[in-house]
Amino acid sequence: MCAEAVTGTLYLDDVKVGEVFRSREQSLDTEDVIAFAGRFDPQRFHLDDAAAKDTIFKGLAASGWHTAAITMRLLVESMPLADGLIGAGVEITWPRPTRPGDTLRAETTILDIRPSRSKPDQAMATLETLTYNQNGEIVQRMQSKNVLYRRRG
Amino acid sequence: MCAEAVTGTLYLDDVKVGEVFRSREQSLDTEDVIAFAGRFDPQRFHLDDAAAKDTIFKGLAASGWHTAAITMRLLVESMPLADGLIGAGVEITWPRPTRPGDTLRAETTILDIRPSRSKPDQAMATLETLTYNQNGEIVQRMQSKNVLYRRRG
Repeated sequence: MCAEAVTGTLYLDDVKVGEVFRSREQSLDTEDVIAFAGRFDPQRFHLDDAAAKDTIFKGLAASGWHTAAITMRLLVESMPLADGLIGAGVEITWPRPTRPGDTLRAETTILDIRPSRSKPDQAMATLETLTYNQNGEIVQRMQSKNVLYRRRG
Repeated sequence: MCAEAVTGTLYLDDVKVGEVFRSREQSLDTEDVIAFAGRFDPQRFHLDDAAAKDTIFKGLAASGWHTAAITMRLLVESMPLADGLIGAGVEITWPRPTRPGDTLRAETTILDIRPSRSKPDQAMATLETLTYNQNGEIVQRMQSKNVLYRRRG
């Protein structure tokens, strides 16, 4: 557990549409999967490998919210915006499950930047963050709307 | 931490469009907010009340992913589907922050049920889950697509 804030240096002025941000890798094991699910998504396919065998997942799978939370960690570290990543909204799909033993990484592309008409120091950026497992398969697709700030002073 | 699976009894046959499912309440405190953020969303407005004062949040706020994870817990308990809540995709917005000391509850409405053409035992349900704080203010709006199964045998 680390409670040190990730601090960034990037402002709206420093980024452009099409730019890609790549994260480090993060592994998760059976214990992680079960601990997260026990707290936030206590369904049998996220808690017990034997009980998960006869479900649509055909074995223990991480909660999609666990994949999303790990992705946020990777995104915060890999896209160091000076004023932080402040999401106005997100759309997520999980094309395949995250499994115990997987190693995830996130790749974020700036799809669009729209300056605010009413607030000249702000813009709304649309980001696409794809989360890959160690086989290069996509386990999560996310599009998010994020507030970006201009450098001040 | 509880790793006991929530087991449900509801099938596609048992639910209908317009039905509403209400959860219990769940409180969160400063320690919860900081612990989740330290692990998954280490940004200063989620970690340190003093540092959060001069941000858009104007004080310590929970990560949106923390609100989402708590909402999932409340949803799993309050909508006990026999085969589980299996999300194909979600859309989320956070109209206002969740704060330390808040007590959240979730209310889920079935917006739509579409039987699968290729899989007669399945349907896709669109759910709207609204997460409220203790003042009745919405802290999260979520729409999700979920697989529902007919009762078998």
